[in-house]
Amino acid sequence: MASAVPFLELNLPSMQGYSISQNRLLGRLDELATIGPIEGGGSCRLALTDADRDGRDLVLTWMKDLGLDISIDGVGNIVGTWNVGTGLPVMTGSHIDTVRTGGRYDGNLGVIAGLEVIETLMSAGMTPARPFAVGVFTNEEGARFQPDMLGALVYVGGLSLETALDTVAIDGAVFGEELQRIGYAGSSPCPSAAPYAFVELHIEQGPRLEAEGVQIGAVTGVQGISWQEVTISGQSNHAGTTPMSLRHDPAYIAAEIAVYLRQIAREYGGNQVCTVGKIDLQPNLINVVPKSATLTLDVRNTDEKLLCEVEAKIDQKIAELAVAEGVTISSRVLARFEPVEFDDQLTGLIVEMANYHNRSVMMMPSGAGHDAQMLARVCPTTMIFTPSVQGISHNPTEFTNTDDLVAGTNILMDTMWALAHSDLSSQTGMI
Amino acid sequence: MASAVPFLELNLPSMQGYSISQNRLLGRLDELATIGPIEGGGSCRLALTDADRDGRDLVLTWMKDLGLDISIDGVGNIVGTWNVGTGLPVMTGSHIDTVRTGGRYDGNLGVIAGLEVIETLMSAGMTPARPFAVGVFTNEEGARFQPDMLGALVYVGGLSLETALDTVAIDGAVFGEELQRIGYAGSSPCPSAAPYAFVELHIEQGPRLEAEGVQIGAVTGVQGISWQEVTISGQSNHAGTTPMSLRHDPAYIAAEIAVYLRQIAREYGGNQVCTVGKIDLQPNLINVVPKSATLTLDVRNTDEKLLCEVEAKIDQKIAELAVAEGVTISSRVLARFEPVEFDDQLTGLIVEMANYHNRSVMMMPSGAGHDAQMLARVCPTTMIFTPSVQGISHNPTEFTNTDDLVAGTNILMDTMWALAHSDLSSQTGMI
Repeated sequence: MASAVPFLELNLPSMQGYSISQNRLLGRLDELATIGPIEGGGSCRLALTDADRDGRDLVLTWMKDLGLDISIDGVGNIVGTWNVGTGLPVMTGSHIDTVRTGGRYDGNLGVIAGLEVIETLMSAGMTPARPFAVGVFTNEEGARFQPDMLGALVYVGGLSLETALDTVAIDGAVFGEELQRIGYAGSSPCPSAAPYAFVELHIEQGPRLEAEGVQIGAVTGVQGISWQEVTISGQSNHAGTTPMSLRHDPAYIAAEIAVYLRQIAREYGGNQVCTVGKIDLQPNLINVVPKSATLTLDVRNTDEKLLCEVEAKIDQKIAELAVAEGVTISSRVLARFEPVEFDDQLTGLIVEMANYHNRSVMMMPSGAGHDAQMLARVCPTTMIFTPSVQGISHNPTEFTNTDDLVAGTNILMDTMWALAHSDLSSQTGMI
Repeated sequence: MASAVPFLELNLPSMQGYSISQNRLLGRLDELATIGPIEGGGSCRLALTDADRDGRDLVLTWMKDLGLDISIDGVGNIVGTWNVGTGLPVMTGSHIDTVRTGGRYDGNLGVIAGLEVIETLMSAGMTPARPFAVGVFTNEEGARFQPDMLGALVYVGGLSLETALDTVAIDGAVFGEELQRIGYAGSSPCPSAAPYAFVELHIEQGPRLEAEGVQIGAVTGVQGISWQEVTISGQSNHAGTTPMSLRHDPAYIAAEIAVYLRQIAREYGGNQVCTVGKIDLQPNLINVVPKSATLTLDVRNTDEKLLCEVEAKIDQKIAELAVAEGVTISSRVLARFEPVEFDDQLTGLIVEMANYHNRSVMMMPSGAGHDAQMLARVCPTTMIFTPSVQGISHNPTEFTNTDDLVAGTNILMDTMWALAHSDLSSQTGMI
């Protein structure tokens, strides 16, 4: 972790009285939200649709207006670089694709804040010692093509370009063909060269900051995720004529599993979360003991060892329930990602920057996946979270207060500046 | 309860060596099953559809071939009467409408067995002291028009003809119009005159007889039914970013309710059964804490006092869960029927008849609703159950062994004969 505040020697932009422009920031968020508009003020810009193309076109216009060098790689990732200083760039960015019922901040904030940082510094006549880059990563949401964070994953070499281009969407479209169609199959190579460091500004998409009355989250990493689908097969029977002792009831077992998930999440505490969000009974009739139940288990922890323990306990419980009720239970893994740990020094820097800006701050893991977790494979990485009102996201009512948006973007600016003037390769680096 | 076996003085048909015809009984079951056929050997004859009409036409042909007097009332109930002897008729019967995935025994057996009893006696030259009647009641299943057992309910005066005719189907059709369309809006008055007694032969539709290795069920009554739909409204949130302590999770509460229903059913034991057969989550996605859950509660007991107790405890539990989780729960009653008790003397007679036929027998309540429970409002009533293999019903794989079908029908024959020669109005009647 960083020691006391040597970055105070760095003449941060905010120390010199500069602030990002609230009006410009909000104006760009508003303008981008008008592309793929949906009822309630949100957007639907599923990856590689016409709406995604129109959103990309708008961001490109902004980048060109700033005079950035623009590269587009084979998977459609856009990087706008302010080629100043020397060495590897300090990178920020996020995504502008959305879920079907997207809000106006998720992803968009990280891209627009990056442009805002550059424009503010340009206007102030301040030139960082390293290039600044803003990435717009393809298909972060995974709402049309899976996996999510596909663009960032290819960017860091975690998935081959060929595999990515062959990906088939939930609507049957092929990734490579759609990318060609919207004109964003670029020629820059991927995987790309690793940046010097990566910092992503994002809304929290959860309720913790608001609930604890804290203004900034310094993100320590991303939770590991274990997704499985559990299918329970029992004996369909008449609800009136079948004595309790003769039942093999998949709905009851599904309920026991859901209750157990809550119990074990409480037992482990900490960052352990468990969710049953989907239950489907067959035939799903009031007076029929179902013949089958399918439910999903979403289990996350920041600690891989604890996550494995919880997975094992759930498996054991399921096996016990199957025997006790005389039902057959099978399960298949839908996703399994180990936890990602961000760079301690960088996360510590966010804490110090928040303190300097007089914003309350807490270190916290991200419960959701983000492009930053892919960049963390190749360079020191962290994220800055701003509060989400009521924790709502993926919904047109997603909202973050203007004050928080501005503070988050200023902290991003000072953090990028500090990184541009640091030496992360040294154990005694400035931060 | 009946004393020892005075009916042995009655010269029952079986005492004289007569048995119903297995081939004729099975032949008619087979023939009726070919109308509205579905994959697997079952039938789909939803009430007042063309298939229902074709089934009725076939049964009418059989009745006419036997020379029965046929009446059809304003709600479409068909009664075929063998007008011999004097006084009120001894009545049997059931229904030939089915659920969408109907088997070949549910209902059909009771109608065809009634005709079989009459044809056997006619062939034997035996004439009962009272008329024998076979009823075919309209819309027993309730799979197209609600309530179920509608025809029998109108037959006994429990629902006005006008209300019945105005009933709208799940497919939007109007009962009276459909009845006219298929040509079964008859002119016989309803409510009809009460018969002397009513005995219905039916498959158990549950697993108890098979599980206990018993061949005949002497039915003591029908369980009371309490159906409600419970809707839980919580806070939809991201499954990864929302700490357990901040959740208001309708899926978890639905699961707790389902687990509680199993618990209270075990606690009360006896004839208490509780089922959650239907659960619907919104939006039903793996990584979203649902915003709402709707589930159905099917709670039954043969004892009204116990049923009320269990309902009250469930209500209390739901209220406690709502407070603990911070969710809103509303519920609405979908159906509520008090338990029906059949006539002790008649049920005792079934036990004696089964003993006489060397069939093992147990007294048991019916978990499902039947036409007989409506007839029980106006005359001494009971039912005879034959075992359902694996308890399966409302499914093409519904099956009862031939031996059980024949024995059940012979017991029906002797029971109707005994009733025709009894005096149920006397406390010292022959049975």
